[in-house]
Amino acid sequence: VRAIDEAAELLSRLPGLGRKSAVRIAYHILKSDESFARALAERIVRLKASIKACSVCGCYSEGDPCEVCSDPGRDRGLICVVEQAQDAASIEQAKEYAGLYHVLGGVIAPLDGVGPEKLRVRELLARLEGVRELIIATNPTVEGDTTALWLQRLIKDTGIVVSRLASGLPVGGDLEYADRLTLSRSFRGRTRVG
Amino acid sequence: VRAIDEAAELLSRLPGLGRKSAVRIAYHILKSDESFARALAERIVRLKASIKACSVCGCYSEGDPCEVCSDPGRDRGLICVVEQAQDAASIEQAKEYAGLYHVLGGVIAPLDGVGPEKLRVRELLARLEGVRELIIATNPTVEGDTTALWLQRLIKDTGIVVSRLASGLPVGGDLEYADRLTLSRSFRGRTRVG
Repeated sequence: VRAIDEAAELLSRLPGLGRKSAVRIAYHILKSDESFARALAERIVRLKASIKACSVCGCYSEGDPCEVCSDPGRDRGLICVVEQAQDAASIEQAKEYAGLYHVLGGVIAPLDGVGPEKLRVRELLARLEGVRELIIATNPTVEGDTTALWLQRLIKDTGIVVSRLASGLPVGGDLEYADRLTLSRSFRGRTRVG
Repeated sequence: VRAIDEAAELLSRLPGLGRKSAVRIAYHILKSDESFARALAERIVRLKASIKACSVCGCYSEGDPCEVCSDPGRDRGLICVVEQAQDAASIEQAKEYAGLYHVLGGVIAPLDGVGPEKLRVRELLARLEGVRELIIATNPTVEGDTTALWLQRLIKDTGIVVSRLASGLPVGGDLEYADRLTLSRSFRGRTRVG
């Protein structure tokens, strides 16, 4: 049936959905009542319409500046640099950090043709006054580490402390299943406990 | 951000999507261009609006009767009985079967309070004239087998051959997830049970 195939085709472009799961979802929508399909469609459209990037930090937000940037309770001396907006959302959920964010919009990846000029670096430099620590929370990948190193050198002379999120074994994880790189890092980054 | 949470909440009600995948999909929609979100929303609504159950066989269709029921090239002496409409769609993809379908709308499941009277059995009986074989393609589960046995007894005296799809489908599995080759083989190897 064409309408099912068409819906499944679009659904299968979403991350994590293959052809079969997309078809299954299409049938599920068919079987559920119409109000569900309408609500789902409406929220998808509203998502795009109501959310923009914060003009200060680049996080997704319904207002501008975003909730974090406009919260007087956040520590303005700390900026956490992330690759993409959802990384900031993940960090928010951990409820551990009370500073501000800065979304780079990617990482330096010469093989993909992404140089520093394609990232929101200039916007970051414009925000550094009054900042005492920059926490670079790019992913612990080759590109993420390269980007962190590059940023660290860039602001070396400002006197701002630059830190990097600790990398090591995931909490609740099993040493037996850790990959060698993670294990090496967890050794190098070991902390004294006694 | 509220709009993201709301969209993720609805998305996580779709089959196979947990909370994390729903959030990931919401961010993906945010990052893609607006035409994609619009097209996706539109197809979800169109899905419900344009597709109905065929009044003859019960399959999902944009017209009534459906494409299969109104195709003069299909063998009207064969009816394949399936639990739900998407099972017929899976069988169509195997391109092995050229008869008609009948959607039961479920299986006999006493524990869930589903007796034969809740299934489209009367509609099936009304279609048996001129039929020489009934292929019962309910899932190879306890309920599917029970329903097959019950149907077989019900039409025993009509002289119509009753068959069941051959094993080849993993026992306890779900027809919806069978690959095309397995489905084809199970059609060719179907065994007469009555």
